[in-house]
Amino acid sequence: MKKALIVGATGFGGLGLIEILLRHKGFEITQLVARKDVGQKISQVFPHLEGFCDMMVQSPEDINLDNVDIAFFSTPDKAGMQMIHTFYNNNIPVIDFSGDFRFTTVDDYTIYAQNKGMNIEHAAADVLSHTVYGLPEKYAEKIKKAKIVGNPGCFAIAMILGLLPAVEEGIIESDTIICDGKTGVSGAGKNPGEANFYPQRYEDVNTYREGHHQHVVEVENILNAHSKNKKNILFIPQIVPLNRGILVTMYADVKASIDNNKIFDLYTSYYHNKPFIHITRRSCHTTDVRGTNRCQIRPSVDTRTGKLFITSVIDNLIKGQSGNAVQNANLMMGFDETEGLMIPAFYP
Amino acid sequence: MKKALIVGATGFGGLGLIEILLRHKGFEITQLVARKDVGQKISQVFPHLEGFCDMMVQSPEDINLDNVDIAFFSTPDKAGMQMIHTFYNNNIPVIDFSGDFRFTTVDDYTIYAQNKGMNIEHAAADVLSHTVYGLPEKYAEKIKKAKIVGNPGCFAIAMILGLLPAVEEGIIESDTIICDGKTGVSGAGKNPGEANFYPQRYEDVNTYREGHHQHVVEVENILNAHSKNKKNILFIPQIVPLNRGILVTMYADVKASIDNNKIFDLYTSYYHNKPFIHITRRSCHTTDVRGTNRCQIRPSVDTRTGKLFITSVIDNLIKGQSGNAVQNANLMMGFDETEGLMIPAFYP
Amino acid sequence: MKKALIVGATGFGGLGLIEILLRHKGFEITQLVARKDVGQKISQVFPHLEGFCDMMVQSPEDINLDNVDIAFFSTPDKAGMQMIHTFYNNNIPVIDFSGDFRFTTVDDYTIYAQNKGMNIEHAAADVLSHTVYGLPEKYAEKIKKAKIVGNPGCFAIAMILGLLPAVEEGIIESDTIICDGKTGVSGAGKNPGEANFYPQRYEDVNTYREGHHQHVVEVENILNAHSKNKKNILFIPQIVPLNRGILVTMYADVKASIDNNKIFDLYTSYYHNKPFIHITRRSCHTTDVRGTNRCQIRPSVDTRTGKLFITSVIDNLIKGQSGNAVQNANLMMGFDETEGLMIPAFYP
Amino acid sequence: MKKALIVGATGFGGLGLIEILLRHKGFEITQLVARKDVGQKISQVFPHLEGFCDMMVQSPEDINLDNVDIAFFSTPDKAGMQMIHTFYNNNIPVIDFSGDFRFTTVDDYTIYAQNKGMNIEHAAADVLSHTVYGLPEKYAEKIKKAKIVGNPGCFAIAMILGLLPAVEEGIIESDTIICDGKTGVSGAGKNPGEANFYPQRYEDVNTYREGHHQHVVEVENILNAHSKNKKNILFIPQIVPLNRGILVTMYADVKASIDNNKIFDLYTSYYHNKPFIHITRRSCHTTDVRGTNRCQIRPSVDTRTGKLFITSVIDNLIKGQSGNAVQNANLMMGFDETEGLMIPAFYP
Repeated sequence: MKKALIVGATGFGGLGLIEILLRHKGFEITQLVARKDVGQKISQVFPHLEGFCDMMVQSPEDINLDNVDIAFFSTPDKAGMQMIHTFYNNNIPVIDFSGDFRFTTVDDYTIYAQNKGMNIEHAAADVLSHTVYGLPEKYAEKIKKAKIVGNPGCFAIAMILGLLPAVEEGIIESDTIICDGKTGVSGAGKNPGEANFYPQRYEDVNTYREGHHQHVVEVENILNAHSKNKKNILFIPQIVPLNRGILVTMYADVKASIDNNKIFDLYTSYYHNKPFIHITRRSCHTTDVRGTNRCQIRPSVDTRTGKLFITSVIDNLIKGQSGNAVQNANLMMGFDETEGLMIPAFYP
Repeated sequence: MKKALIVGATGFGGLGLIEILLRHKGFEITQLVARKDVGQKISQVFPHLEGFCDMMVQSPEDINLDNVDIAFFSTPDKAGMQMIHTFYNNNIPVIDFSGDFRFTTVDDYTIYAQNKGMNIEHAAADVLSHTVYGLPEKYAEKIKKAKIVGNPGCFAIAMILGLLPAVEEGIIESDTIICDGKTGVSGAGKNPGEANFYPQRYEDVNTYREGHHQHVVEVENILNAHSKNKKNILFIPQIVPLNRGILVTMYADVKASIDNNKIFDLYTSYYHNKPFIHITRRSCHTTDVRGTNRCQIRPSVDTRTGKLFITSVIDNLIKGQSGNAVQNANLMMGFDETEGLMIPAFYP
Repeated sequence: MKKALIVGATGFGGLGLIEILLRHKGFEITQLVARKDVGQKISQVFPHLEGFCDMMVQSPEDINLDNVDIAFFSTPDKAGMQMIHTFYNNNIPVIDFSGDFRFTTVDDYTIYAQNKGMNIEHAAADVLSHTVYGLPEKYAEKIKKAKIVGNPGCFAIAMILGLLPAVEEGIIESDTIICDGKTGVSGAGKNPGEANFYPQRYEDVNTYREGHHQHVVEVENILNAHSKNKKNILFIPQIVPLNRGILVTMYADVKASIDNNKIFDLYTSYYHNKPFIHITRRSCHTTDVRGTNRCQIRPSVDTRTGKLFITSVIDNLIKGQSGNAVQNANLMMGFDETEGLMIPAFYP
Repeated sequence: MKKALIVGATGFGGLGLIEILLRHKGFEITQLVARKDVGQKISQVFPHLEGFCDMMVQSPEDINLDNVDIAFFSTPDKAGMQMIHTFYNNNIPVIDFSGDFRFTTVDDYTIYAQNKGMNIEHAAADVLSHTVYGLPEKYAEKIKKAKIVGNPGCFAIAMILGLLPAVEEGIIESDTIICDGKTGVSGAGKNPGEANFYPQRYEDVNTYREGHHQHVVEVENILNAHSKNKKNILFIPQIVPLNRGILVTMYADVKASIDNNKIFDLYTSYYHNKPFIHITRRSCHTTDVRGTNRCQIRPSVDTRTGKLFITSVIDNLIKGQSGNAVQNANLMMGFDETEGLMIPAFYP
């Protein structure tokens, strides 16, 4: 059994890890760490865990490095960069959930930080060149050997998986790809506030950070690393009164030679043998993937207008966060990529 | 007081009319007609109306034409066309909520009917050329004199109002305009079924009729009637777990000379003196217009990609249906355009 | 036009008052006051008010007493008691939404304060004996002459209206009446926090403050003021994933001579001429009263067990708060009791 | 591996069985049978099952008895009684989800059928005396040997588990126990209609079948089988806008010698070694048990009124249906009682 440390255990990311690792045959959780709720049992923070996981939440000061094969930093921006050197120098692999290690250059990080309105200083710039972007469908070999993995943003992974085959094949003719994203409320994490206040949210749909959401940088980075021509993403995120789930609709001009069958074949073949990618011809529903690590993608060409139209759905807390992290961890620790992750959606 | 007949009184459209006309100073409801629930009080069908409106629901056979100044057909497709000649020949103005009279030619109706998978035969083709499209912000003068008004589709009115200034000004350079639409569940009317079954719907977002929603025809018709170059609409409708509300995000290429201020000024000036159009620079929320006849529009140009990006929000049951119908009726009967319709949103 | 001051304008109570007074023929709002958002337009706080009410939010220090015929304190506990002497001494009538003035003795207030876990000190104990409990269905004559009205708690008014006829008639035989209350989330006011965090709340029902909710004191006070034998209330409040609405089910032993028809007649006759009380034989739905000042009550006797069973539903923000306050204000200012308040429910 | 047949595979009960048996080490599903959707893959009916279970739905005529170790009838009332003799005569144990086999006498069944407004004729009255009520916490030994198990009603199991210790111990002094039940919408099964139409349901709480819900019979039966004095249940069911979850609050007079600690000890000791019963001192939340086979019970005595007050929460689709059925099946087939059922709640 590999020993897993979870830092940031009391948020939704930490909770997701706990739930997956509880049913995982290769991992045991050895420490739960957080800044809040230190000294409480995790099952006092999340009562539904009572009897399943009653470990104590410990302070970051009490991390015992001798007892860690892999560390998950399910922490907000800026937290991981404060801790990373200790782990890196001790050769303990880390998967970080924030934007701290999603970029290999300070320049890219700077744009990300500006979009989030944060201080742009990176406290561990020296390790950035050693990080790997945690997209197992594309970078499995690098991830297997990585010491620092930046787990993708939830919207980002839905867009990248939805666009990569078309971009890499070079069939998109427009410079700009339009991404219209809808997310459930849990995407903002376990941070009660006005934006996720039940009376405000239960009957509201709204746009936000139009054109400058922080995930745009990583999407453009990854797509352009595999594209002959530079692509821009115009991304309009929207919050819908859903708890879990992301649905992104994507639009671009496509080569005239591409029709519905060709695009379906292209995607099917590109994701051949990728256990969590599910290419479909049906309309996508977020309920098809709720609670799973699956990304369902519907590639199509609209016959009237000749436009490429792709839909991608994920569970923002699983494939968009903890599930994808465990998929990365499976690769890093030599487990089967799907271990702990093959369960059908929670429905209804 | 003008005498109003409501046919189709037991659906959401009929209910909306009842609620608005109850507070309207110029109309009295003289008859409520429906196929179902005949012989019951409307307050048995909708218990919240008890004490406010307890009129009996009557059968279509019992319509008393002598007692009607204006008729609202809040009926499904094909119902209005069966009744229209009686009203037309008796010179009683009609506002119809279905697609029956939204088109002036049989050809356009045919596309509409095909998109909905219906029989394409129109039973009153002879009156089509006398119909007026019920868009009061554009056709107020025609509506004032109209005998048959086709009240727009809910998604259609959100898109048309959002695009008309840009299309008419000729600043859109692309042939195709992308419209990504999100609607609440009540848009499908009071028709319980699998698609609006609570356990299926409460945590689901999905696309449907991708590229071939029936409202596309009327949007293209109206836009192209005021455009120098033909525009196509690629419309992807989506259902979100909201009861009321439509939010449409629209994308197109725009002339390089247009920036955020210019587009804001263009829209503000175009809708000058239109009491229900609300141009804003803020992010749009469906809660800003819930329960109102307002259409809130945010026109903008994304600086990174140079794309035109417009958001439009309405309440699908009010500006998208009964409120807009009363606005038309106000024009037709010589009342102030806003009578009965100036109330703030229902919040929270 | 009577001049109304609203203190606490930026909460749900203040918002409710604004919306009702906007359509009221006898009141004009002269000042909006709050601690937060001072210097902003109220329509920046509540964007849906834009164009309907764009008054500036002012600080409590800027209250202009010369311009006030009546003051609404839509403020939390302890706020009103700090301000009351100024108004009382200037002979300006006040309606307070908190528990500050719901009791005529310090002893009763103390129990209330203890149940809420607050400091029990009352800063204006001298005026308590001059307060009137704002239950217009029972105390209309006193309210007409009152200078300080304590507007009832939302759960309290639903319980009192549901029980008063039976208690006053002396048909309840048990000492304890069981009240099982279900409330929507907006009952906690506009205070984002863990308890009304969308992801926690959207699929949760829970009990809280079992047996010691702060509204119990006022319910027992009012009932026992009109009962021959002392009655206790065992009240179990519950939060349900609803925005607005309270439904309380109430149980007690009843005299053997009382059957379904007798109890229905008793309630109908007791509330004869009370415009907002609606006695019914149907199952109660919160949707029947949403957005209205109506209290719907279903009194019944269960034939198998012989128990009295009463259901009461209200909109917690209207009859449970701002609507009832305006009903009181109508009485105090000499307007028709229903002015501004007769609208059907917002449905669907 | 034991071979499981699921009849009624396309409803929520069938779906729950499929999901649990997919992760069960002792069962394999050999046939899925239903009246609707015959000839389709189950993953066409429930797209989220794609890749997990793609078996064909077969007609009841195609049941192959040679391939069945145990049969689950997840069917509506009256369906199981038509099929039971075939299975009974072939010695194949059956677990039925309807009311068909929850009673050992025709008299009891008759009351049940009347409460549901059904024909009271029982087509297999001869086997009723051989049935066992599927309450594993009480009847494990009988269930192990049973050939026909009537799986309890969802509300019934929440009430019985909540009341049995107190009733059996004889500490309840009142004849009537009040049960105030709140259920999510999925309790009505996968039957779209007006009562679970999203626009009607999303903001509604209502009572229904007040005092005569069909589950009352089985609750009284089981309780009275273990009580010295006959107890009546006054049960008021309510629907809340929740998908999954039941919370029942129960009230009765209790012996004066019983306090909070004694009742807690009584329940803890009564359910000692029952893996799915979770006695707590905290307020109960339906989210604590969502997706699990757990029943959480909070027994307490209200100190002010001296009343017994018990809360019980379950997931109506798991402990209230398919999970409890698998628990029974585990006993019947000799597996560990918890096999396939020990997962934490799905949260958030």
